[in-house]
Amino acid sequence: KDEEGNVAERCKKFMSPPITPMEVLEKRKEEISSRMEMLIMQTQAEFCRALEEVDGGKFKVDRWSRAEGGGGISCVMQDSNVFEKAGVNVSVVHGYLTEEAAKQMRSRGKVLKGKDGKLPFIAMGVSSVIHPKNPHIPTVHFNYRYFEIEEEDGSKQWWFGGGTDLTPVYIDKEDGALFHNVLREACDKHHPKYYPDFKKWCDRYFYIRHRGETRGIGGIFFDDLDSPSQEEVFKFVKSCAKTVVPCYLPIVHKHLKDSFTQEEKDWQQVRRGRYVEFNLVYDRGVKFGLATPGSRIESILMSLPLTARWEYMHEPSKGTREAEMIEVLRNPKEWI
Amino acid sequence: KDEEGNVAERCKKFMSPPITPMEVLEKRKEEISSRMEMLIMQTQAEFCRALEEVDGGKFKVDRWSRAEGGGGISCVMQDSNVFEKAGVNVSVVHGYLTEEAAKQMRSRGKVLKGKDGKLPFIAMGVSSVIHPKNPHIPTVHFNYRYFEIEEEDGSKQWWFGGGTDLTPVYIDKEDGALFHNVLREACDKHHPKYYPDFKKWCDRYFYIRHRGETRGIGGIFFDDLDSPSQEEVFKFVKSCAKTVVPCYLPIVHKHLKDSFTQEEKDWQQVRRGRYVEFNLVYDRGVKFGLATPGSRIESILMSLPLTARWEYMHEPSKGTREAEMIEVLRNPKEWI
Repeated sequence: KDEEGNVAERCKKFMSPPITPMEVLEKRKEEISSRMEMLIMQTQAEFCRALEEVDGGKFKVDRWSRAEGGGGISCVMQDSNVFEKAGVNVSVVHGYLTEEAAKQMRSRGKVLKGKDGKLPFIAMGVSSVIHPKNPHIPTVHFNYRYFEIEEEDGSKQWWFGGGTDLTPVYIDKEDGALFHNVLREACDKHHPKYYPDFKKWCDRYFYIRHRGETRGIGGIFFDDLDSPSQEEVFKFVKSCAKTVVPCYLPIVHKHLKDSFTQEEKDWQQVRRGRYVEFNLVYDRGVKFGLATPGSRIESILMSLPLTARWEYMHEPSKGTREAEMIEVLRNPKEWI
Repeated sequence: KDEEGNVAERCKKFMSPPITPMEVLEKRKEEISSRMEMLIMQTQAEFCRALEEVDGGKFKVDRWSRAEGGGGISCVMQDSNVFEKAGVNVSVVHGYLTEEAAKQMRSRGKVLKGKDGKLPFIAMGVSSVIHPKNPHIPTVHFNYRYFEIEEEDGSKQWWFGGGTDLTPVYIDKEDGALFHNVLREACDKHHPKYYPDFKKWCDRYFYIRHRGETRGIGGIFFDDLDSPSQEEVFKFVKSCAKTVVPCYLPIVHKHLKDSFTQEEKDWQQVRRGRYVEFNLVYDRGVKFGLATPGSRIESILMSLPLTARWEYMHEPSKGTREAEMIEVLRNPKEWI
């Protein structure tokens, strides 16, 4: 239903007009790339509005364009009432794949044959990282993206990727269950294996190898999803995108008034340090972005927290809530 | 002169006994690997004592061993009077090169022929990063190291690497000149091209590509130094190691009582964030360490500051001292 109505009308609710001109989106409204662009714009707007409502602050909205083609809209709320740093970014870029990008994709098993070695692509996605001030409100991250590459013979390869994952500072089993349940329900509507498979993939992907810890308590993660059909996968991604508000906002509201000590705040800062380690050392999107000429560094690195801390040999005492957190990160568990 | 006297006597001044048993060092006292181990231990002790004197605090001394062979001594002073985090680490490790390590060395042009593919190695070094609390006292980093690999025919390949570099939060031309002068004097005693070449290498190495900025105002950096002779290169490295106190401590003393504002402290925190970006994304030693099984993560990451900050779209106003700093990082200059 929410794909009905004319494009211009729907765009009124967005944080900023879409990257692709509205007339083009209207004319090509049946195409997956247009529908996906509308979906990521809508996801950005719904999530930002929900965060603004609970915070009382306003997002700063930056439109940017990329010399090589396309652009994005970065929404950031920094040092606000509830959130230390909240970033929700949309990008719709096109051009030719760099050698490095093609190499990375081939290493994942893709066969790419370009015309004169050139591979035109379109990539679009919405991604977000929210770092709250209160250590009892977890950090959340999500990203939903679509990729299209044109091959030598004019045919198109396409795939979707994405996921949502939660990084609490302290374990709250009820929060973990709620979060995973909302994601499972979205998955189960499309395939009974999606939730169990993508839950495992998430734990495996968000793994800080040198620490022997996951970044958080997981969620779902998938990539290179290109079957059974473009329509089916899009519908699945849409179901996932629809969960970003209901899987996170109830948790924010629940802990909004939780009191906390300086020790709890310090522990949050140490965990923020680990978040930075994952993002800078392992995250594929960040590595890809930093190595891509013309990419917007500030939008890529807006996932980093406002503040972080590295204490030499920090090890929580046995039996503490901090030790309980570490234990779960070392041994990912089932939440539902 | 300072290599005279018996080993046991000299070791009394160290932060902890050396990794190699003293009897072995005494017996092999003419060998470069023994002399280098004594030098790195002595450098650690002299630097730590000088920092303790100015700070009033004491280093925590941790001895650690590596299952695969060798070990280290990590000295850390955290959240003290003058220093937010000061780490001075010695390591002396041996074993067989991992595939990854051999590959990295080959990519730098080394020809390595192992017996049955196995390459026994010894690696040792002293490395340090000092993050002061006062934003007018710069961060300093140095590292001096020696590497030896045994080839198929029993012959040994060896080389030295190292450098010292300064990362101020604000430009102080006098500090920059003092720092570079002390390094140049040490270099000039050995070869007139060392300072100009290694100064350039330093600016090139400590470059945060995605920011288009160097990490700091440089110093010297060199690697794979294996000529004219082991004795000559060792003497050069020794000269460099002897500069760590005189090139930094005068700067610490000069700014010890400088007052600072919250804005200056915030700018320091933003610069700390860039330090983290360089170390986690580009530093060869960190990347190598994080990827090496059995390496001591806490010693590798003790180079990270206690606290850091990432502000979205932080850009100093024109004409400010912050803008002056950025300008120098974007266009490395000559200090002497």
